[in-house]
Amino acid sequence: ADVKKIAVIAGDGIGPEVVAEAEKVLKRTEELFGYQFETEHALFGGIAIDEKGTPLPEETLKVCQSADAVLLGAVGGPKWDNNSKELRPETGLLGIRKALGLFSNIRPAFIFDCLKEASTLKPEVLEGTDLIVVRELTGGIYFGEKFRRETANGQEAVDTCAYSEKEVERIARQAFDIARTRRKKLASVDKANVLETSRLWREVVIRVSADYPDVELEHVLVDNCAMQLLRRPSSFDVIVTENMFGDILSDEAAMLTGSIGMLASASLGEGAFGLYEPVHGSAPDIAGQGISNPIATILSVALMFRLTFGYHEAADSIERAVKEVLDAGHRTGDIAVDKSTAIGTLAMGQLIVDAM
Amino acid sequence: ADVKKIAVIAGDGIGPEVVAEAEKVLKRTEELFGYQFETEHALFGGIAIDEKGTPLPEETLKVCQSADAVLLGAVGGPKWDNNSKELRPETGLLGIRKALGLFSNIRPAFIFDCLKEASTLKPEVLEGTDLIVVRELTGGIYFGEKFRRETANGQEAVDTCAYSEKEVERIARQAFDIARTRRKKLASVDKANVLETSRLWREVVIRVSADYPDVELEHVLVDNCAMQLLRRPSSFDVIVTENMFGDILSDEAAMLTGSIGMLASASLGEGAFGLYEPVHGSAPDIAGQGISNPIATILSVALMFRLTFGYHEAADSIERAVKEVLDAGHRTGDIAVDKSTAIGTLAMGQLIVDAM
Ligand SMILES: CC(C)[C@H](C(=O)O)[C@@H](O)C(=O)O
Ligand SMILES: CC(C)[C@H](C(=O)O)[C@@H](O)C(=O)O
Repeated sequence: ADVKKIAVIAGDGIGPEVVAEAEKVLKRTEELFGYQFETEHALFGGIAIDEKGTPLPEETLKVCQSADAVLLGAVGGPKWDNNSKELRPETGLLGIRKALGLFSNIRPAFIFDCLKEASTLKPEVLEGTDLIVVRELTGGIYFGEKFRRETANGQEAVDTCAYSEKEVERIARQAFDIARTRRKKLASVDKANVLETSRLWREVVIRVSADYPDVELEHVLVDNCAMQLLRRPSSFDVIVTENMFGDILSDEAAMLTGSIGMLASASLGEGAFGLYEPVHGSAPDIAGQGISNPIATILSVALMFRLTFGYHEAADSIERAVKEVLDAGHRTGDIAVDKSTAIGTLAMGQLIVDAM
Repeated sequence: ADVKKIAVIAGDGIGPEVVAEAEKVLKRTEELFGYQFETEHALFGGIAIDEKGTPLPEETLKVCQSADAVLLGAVGGPKWDNNSKELRPETGLLGIRKALGLFSNIRPAFIFDCLKEASTLKPEVLEGTDLIVVRELTGGIYFGEKFRRETANGQEAVDTCAYSEKEVERIARQAFDIARTRRKKLASVDKANVLETSRLWREVVIRVSADYPDVELEHVLVDNCAMQLLRRPSSFDVIVTENMFGDILSDEAAMLTGSIGMLASASLGEGAFGLYEPVHGSAPDIAGQGISNPIATILSVALMFRLTFGYHEAADSIERAVKEVLDAGHRTGDIAVDKSTAIGTLAMGQLIVDAM
């Protein structure tokens, strides 16, 4: 039988609670569809720092490398915030992206009809919003040379932002490919009026666009994009941008949907392998109380089914179940209008499993 | 008599129309308050490229350097968008900031009560929003070394982001000083979990904060700030950040007020000298039709009175006049709910002058 190996990284904060519900969904998928999953748990982030002295133990990397996909909860928390760089959860995150070659971060942001009111934007503005931010994930200022030096103006810190044609081309192709399966509109975001990396970015995107005559391409400056996301969110289909801009814009896009507890993300490389995680963080303030929202992690499983395994029917089943449970009025605290009726993590997970 | 010299740069697109109304306000201030202004016009941006072959003619720089303040309309337009770097309006903008030592860009974003509905955010979320983004303007990735080189992955483009302690300290002090005159809250925005420049930024801001024990300081990561601006805009008082992040966040903040045609900005250096301009751009699509909104430029004059000349009474008079005209229901097309009742640039300017 075709057994899919999934590396499961629960991580920190609410990570373990939400991942536990996602694992129930995996189990239920086996029963319903006859698929087989083999999960292997691994330490990562803060808990790995505590137990192994490093955020990304060699062993964890091996577990991921021998898996078909990775399911990640969340990492980080105040406990490790003042650690030195090598002992910080974020360093593990950057390390795992680089080590696994995950150059592309896919962040869908869309509106759950029944949660439209949760956004701080007016419902009529949000109407129809359904976009994907494709963020370059292993280049740019995140990974360029960094150092300090002494100058006449005191210490100076330097970060280097670099992009090669190859790096831009592969992420551009991926974004065009995704746009092709959707509304066929791609917004490439850069700061070509100031940055040399953006000018290269734009040149390469234009060159690649020749292979996608069916996709409508627009170039949007990053400052303008931050505005247009607020003004006309529903006009975007796929947005492709470099690492730092993508970090900012994907979070802005997620927040404007009002459904940040509901959004999944995928980090992909050249093949089908991918790392899947909820967009929300480790929420240390509510960890361990059993009140966190497992939906984003459950939907990350659906995204894994679609993008890595091609299990579309099973993905449909999960997404339909989530919709059904929400439509029936069930809410965790983060999305409940009347907090007194909120249900917990376990109850929400069970409802979704039952509805599959 | 104390004659204040003002360099007036009308620029491109709607720049000349909105600046003309601001000049009427200057004239009216002379009549009402007995101040004296001497204005000198200078070419800048696209029009300077056309007439002088460079976006920032030496002459224009001299006019600015011998003035007490600069009033700028707007620059740029599609006509010059495909020019080489040296022949682009933006290059003039970056050049004038550097040449005049304008290291600090002050961008107030607040809600005009009568325009609350113009925002795409819910009015109850916006309620009480009144913040200032203090953006570092002559450092960071905007001004670092830029180049291309050949690599095994094709051409590679490089931008360098650098900050010295001195650069961070002066902008931090300015932000703390401003916070002190307001609600005494400062949010310093960085990406200290990834960037070396951000780690230096944070160290220096913390050090400077020792001199401002009365100001409450929080550190916010840039991606989180992009979200929090949407979730709780009214909780921010002063935001201080580096050049690139400030470009993005100040535009996001301006847009969420729904009043982008109303917002003024100041670019300051060490002394009282400043360059004042509306936040909106040159809007080439509506240029020359007499329908643009002159309020942001008129309010830029009020900001100049406050920050460079200390003419607070005159600034009050302008701001009150704008409020009165808006409260009476007058609207230019950009802010009119019923476009058929919109008035033009000249009419709006005259109403404000009359109400002073
Ligand atoms: C934690 C941090 C390093 C990370 C990033 O900036 O990439 C996070 O914000 C994200 O978007 O996954
Ligand atoms: C035109 C451009 C170079 C400029 C900038 O990025 O600084 C503009 O966006 C601004 O904010 O004044």
